[in-house]
Amino acid sequence: MWELAQKYRACVVFAEHRYYGKSMPFGNMTFNLTQNYGYLSVEQALEDFAWLISSMQEKNKKYGPVIAFGGSYGGMLSAWLRMKYPHLVYGALAASAPVRQFDGLTACDIFSRITTSIFATSFNNRSCADNIRKSWELFKQLASSDDGKKKLNAAFKFCEPIKAEGDLNKFFDYLEDVYGNLAMANYPYANDFLSPLPPYPVRQFCSYLQTPVSGDKLLDGMQQAINVYFNFTGATKCLDYTSAYDPSSIGGNAWEIQTCNQMVMPMCSTPETMFRPKEWNFKEYADKCMEKYHIKPKLDDITVRYGGRNAREMSNIIFSNGLLDPWSGGGVLQSDNPTVHIIIIPEGAHHLDLRAKHPKDPISVLQARNRESDIIGKWINEYRW
Amino acid sequence: MWELAQKYRACVVFAEHRYYGKSMPFGNMTFNLTQNYGYLSVEQALEDFAWLISSMQEKNKKYGPVIAFGGSYGGMLSAWLRMKYPHLVYGALAASAPVRQFDGLTACDIFSRITTSIFATSFNNRSCADNIRKSWELFKQLASSDDGKKKLNAAFKFCEPIKAEGDLNKFFDYLEDVYGNLAMANYPYANDFLSPLPPYPVRQFCSYLQTPVSGDKLLDGMQQAINVYFNFTGATKCLDYTSAYDPSSIGGNAWEIQTCNQMVMPMCSTPETMFRPKEWNFKEYADKCMEKYHIKPKLDDITVRYGGRNAREMSNIIFSNGLLDPWSGGGVLQSDNPTVHIIIIPEGAHHLDLRAKHPKDPISVLQARNRESDIIGKWINEYRW
Repeated sequence: MWELAQKYRACVVFAEHRYYGKSMPFGNMTFNLTQNYGYLSVEQALEDFAWLISSMQEKNKKYGPVIAFGGSYGGMLSAWLRMKYPHLVYGALAASAPVRQFDGLTACDIFSRITTSIFATSFNNRSCADNIRKSWELFKQLASSDDGKKKLNAAFKFCEPIKAEGDLNKFFDYLEDVYGNLAMANYPYANDFLSPLPPYPVRQFCSYLQTPVSGDKLLDGMQQAINVYFNFTGATKCLDYTSAYDPSSIGGNAWEIQTCNQMVMPMCSTPETMFRPKEWNFKEYADKCMEKYHIKPKLDDITVRYGGRNAREMSNIIFSNGLLDPWSGGGVLQSDNPTVHIIIIPEGAHHLDLRAKHPKDPISVLQARNRESDIIGKWINEYRW
Repeated sequence: MWELAQKYRACVVFAEHRYYGKSMPFGNMTFNLTQNYGYLSVEQALEDFAWLISSMQEKNKKYGPVIAFGGSYGGMLSAWLRMKYPHLVYGALAASAPVRQFDGLTACDIFSRITTSIFATSFNNRSCADNIRKSWELFKQLASSDDGKKKLNAAFKFCEPIKAEGDLNKFFDYLEDVYGNLAMANYPYANDFLSPLPPYPVRQFCSYLQTPVSGDKLLDGMQQAINVYFNFTGATKCLDYTSAYDPSSIGGNAWEIQTCNQMVMPMCSTPETMFRPKEWNFKEYADKCMEKYHIKPKLDDITVRYGGRNAREMSNIIFSNGLLDPWSGGGVLQSDNPTVHIIIIPEGAHHLDLRAKHPKDPISVLQARNRESDIIGKWINEYRW
């Protein structure tokens, strides 16, 4: 955005999403009362943006076009902002926006299958993914005996040693989050998008699991591999599996509430993946939401409000997706609409195209950014007030 | 709609707008408490329609296109429904929809100027409009003396005789409503759209005011003319100027609340019109709303949410407008967008095109209906699920 803004002499405005960062409508009480987070919805956020844009423009005075930018959930928002407020937003770049990761639009196992494929192809054999798949059983076995538990706790240096089955499940949830995050942040250079990570962290992770192993060797390999995620800097004293990332740092609370309200993205995994086989169970999902936040999730809310089944009813949107990104499966990957542009970045992880220029950028992301710039330039030229 | 549905073998669904008809969310208390009508907004109504459409379609089953129909406010809703939910509604016929009758989009005197022009052109001279313009002063003079008041009350057979200035102002408000309503319902055949009326009621009205008159003759002419509106059937015993129409019959309460919330359509009239000269005074308007409904009107709400400045950011909408309709001034009368179709009906009053076929239909409305049918047929043909 900074580079494009300079090129097109544009003003860059960052609007903080309500209930994130410093935008807490009820201060410290924001997440304490159900009624206090009743104003946290996609609709309210889009309206904030609409009023912000409109308040920056003097009535009946000519203004240049507004282009929305966003990645991931922000990419969905930018696409939906263009869709719902075309008179205020002339075009949108929706980077890695899984606008189809909703019930009835995309198979629930797509995320786990893509992640598996990324881990399976980081070296010349599938060993990394196969070892991960085997590791669930190994960990379970170890956790079933006192000696095994000791071994497990010693190997991973858990902050809270695993004692009961609940702890093991939390560790498993953590691991699955880690695999997704490693894939999302699989950038060609060291970064701290979700946690401090080396270049191409999946490859780094898999370097410890290059050959089929089992037993102690698998435990050892897994431990070293996971170290890449939780202790790349060497500064972490112990592994805290109770959270994959610090929720307060990127608005975990708000996001979890949104997934419990309307952002219901069905997830599942089949036995062919490296994940634990898991069916999509909406009832269980809804029960958890009710218990934790007193909200009843609305399975069809997003599709009724924002559609997404095809690109025909949209216009002036760029959907970019990296093939190294597990979220790409829920993205818009084809379009027969000339005003909806599809950009595929084979070497790109989660919205790599939105990141600043870097000497290690693969060619495909440079090409993607050039095309995005050209399309946006065309929008600016053709725009009439 | 019934004729088109038969032709295209379509299902006709009428969705009652919340807070109108039988759709009272809080029963008898609906309009008694401010918080009870807090759910009365265009957004909520559109959402109702979106969920209704979606609930009629089985998930992932192919369905034919949905076309929205509406006239007047319903026409605005149908245009906005297409705009906001293009994935659910493939096209819209927005008949006599004044989507531009909002601050900053259309001059506030357009309604009064068009109405004047309709009254001024119903015979070969401007006498009708000129006599109406003169009548305000005459009525005021009469009401300033006891004898005059008697004369006025006797002539118009008021249910409540005019006693104070407040009564006179209510009568004036009534008259201005009547003029607008006569123009809106200026159909070629007898109808009871807003009240029982003869064919071309403006012409009928003006037939009593064909020559320039003053004094008693003007009073007499005005009385006979107004009789056309309030007592066409001869069944009405007295003239009730406290309401231009029965608010309960077409949701007057709900509509007034909407105009006090977001449907703020600035109105004014200049001395060249037949109306009392009146400036647009938002403060006064807002004060009245606050007093009556405890709502603060939002002047820019509709334009921020729905735009309307140009037709470029819309698609698959037919805007039809009759030139005998005072609301046509706030309509979309031109488009450089090939998917936004403009249909002008020179002999049409308020959404005449939506009425059933009638032997007295002017050619221009038959042509309009044919074009509407062709465009809708094209939509149905080109639609892919």
